[in-house]
Amino acid sequence: MPGPVQSIERAAAILRLLARGSGRHSLGEIAGSLGLARGTAHGILRTLQGVGFVEQDEATGKYQLGAALLHLGTSYLDVNELRSRAINWADALAARSGEAVRIGTLLDGQVLVVHHVFRPDDTLQALDVGTLVPLHATALGKVLLAYDTTVTAELLAMPELTAYSRHTITSSQVLTRTLKEIRDGGWAAEAEEFTVGEAGVAAPIRGHGGLVVGAIGISGAVERICDVRGRPQPKLVTFVRDAARAVSRDLGASRW
Amino acid sequence: MPGPVQSIERAAAILRLLARGSGRHSLGEIAGSLGLARGTAHGILRTLQGVGFVEQDEATGKYQLGAALLHLGTSYLDVNELRSRAINWADALAARSGEAVRIGTLLDGQVLVVHHVFRPDDTLQALDVGTLVPLHATALGKVLLAYDTTVTAELLAMPELTAYSRHTITSSQVLTRTLKEIRDGGWAAEAEEFTVGEAGVAAPIRGHGGLVVGAIGISGAVERICDVRGRPQPKLVTFVRDAARAVSRDLGASRW
Repeated sequence: MPGPVQSIERAAAILRLLARGSGRHSLGEIAGSLGLARGTAHGILRTLQGVGFVEQDEATGKYQLGAALLHLGTSYLDVNELRSRAINWADALAARSGEAVRIGTLLDGQVLVVHHVFRPDDTLQALDVGTLVPLHATALGKVLLAYDTTVTAELLAMPELTAYSRHTITSSQVLTRTLKEIRDGGWAAEAEEFTVGEAGVAAPIRGHGGLVVGAIGISGAVERICDVRGRPQPKLVTFVRDAARAVSRDLGASRW
Repeated sequence: MPGPVQSIERAAAILRLLARGSGRHSLGEIAGSLGLARGTAHGILRTLQGVGFVEQDEATGKYQLGAALLHLGTSYLDVNELRSRAINWADALAARSGEAVRIGTLLDGQVLVVHHVFRPDDTLQALDVGTLVPLHATALGKVLLAYDTTVTAELLAMPELTAYSRHTITSSQVLTRTLKEIRDGGWAAEAEEFTVGEAGVAAPIRGHGGLVVGAIGISGAVERICDVRGRPQPKLVTFVRDAARAVSRDLGASRW
């Protein structure tokens, strides 16, 4: 079995660096961040520029992500089976629940949103496809954590869990107990743990053989999602679980 | 100046291959398509898998694009100055014209759609961001060709220009004459040359120093865009040119 190709790993690290923060970095910043010699970083950047993965600003000389990545990202969505099987069920869930629907999958210790159906009203909403949200502070993320012991262990090994609001779970013990409850119940909830005023409910999507491959969930105003005691409305939980089971069945997870 | 890094170029070629057609290929197909030894292709694929750019289907063993590319593609949009400067003007153009608006830039001999505003009515429309459309059969593409002699020469050197309808320009002479008219007039039109029943108008977006960096255009039903003689309505051409000039000015192209 061949080992990883170092220059490709370095190229990927540069692209990930350019996807963070301002998105524009000088050669010196890139080389310094990744601990590469300037000549090495320059050779990789010029190659990435040649294939359209990186662009260089003429005025400042800084590097940023290139247009070819947009097309590859869109092509990923086209071929993604989780998304294509889930699109109709996600539309139906948004219609039944009256809330926005998102489908997420694990990427680099976060939730990658691969599909987003707007809340079915005429308000202005921004498309979240391609964005990353935290695992421990969202219903989608807690579902993904509950069924992935490796990623959970990595998260719990971090010095601290980021608090996005005063309701975010930042205690390892509480998170561990919550994940067990999610496995026992088969669904996850979140109330103002990521965004004040917002709540969410999510359930696991299983693929061929029963492995959890993603999560589907709704989110919206906490007063619509939750009852007066702060618990998600049972009706909404049922809608989400039904949708998750329907997608799982379409993906070949016959037992769910 | 360092030369290109071969393994990164090969990795990019594999990703481009996976972005075409069905999007799922076996190791043998990938190695064969790119003229690589199986061991070489395997090493690159495993590295790409390690960084999340490629996923392998467990059941078939075939390779497909990975989730990390979706996030990089979205991050490209976030940092793209053409798109961020143009968003408000594109919304205004859609409102004034009543038609769908797209912004495109050159990628690999095609037009990459980097922004898409739906036609302002309640009909179902699919988001085109990240898709590629042909240069010689769209108004956006003809604008981009008109101001890029290198890409025009590459296109004219091809054995034939693909006909998407009986109105597509497939003659090199006609295309060359059309591109000159576009440069003279500062805008391009297209009537049923890509999609039967659809027409479009586009104008160039210039960046700092006056270089054409993209195109903005409207498209919609040919009977709305064009008059009875098949020419685009002057009012719509003015709307498109005004929007293109406004974006160019915001990008620092002071002369337009």
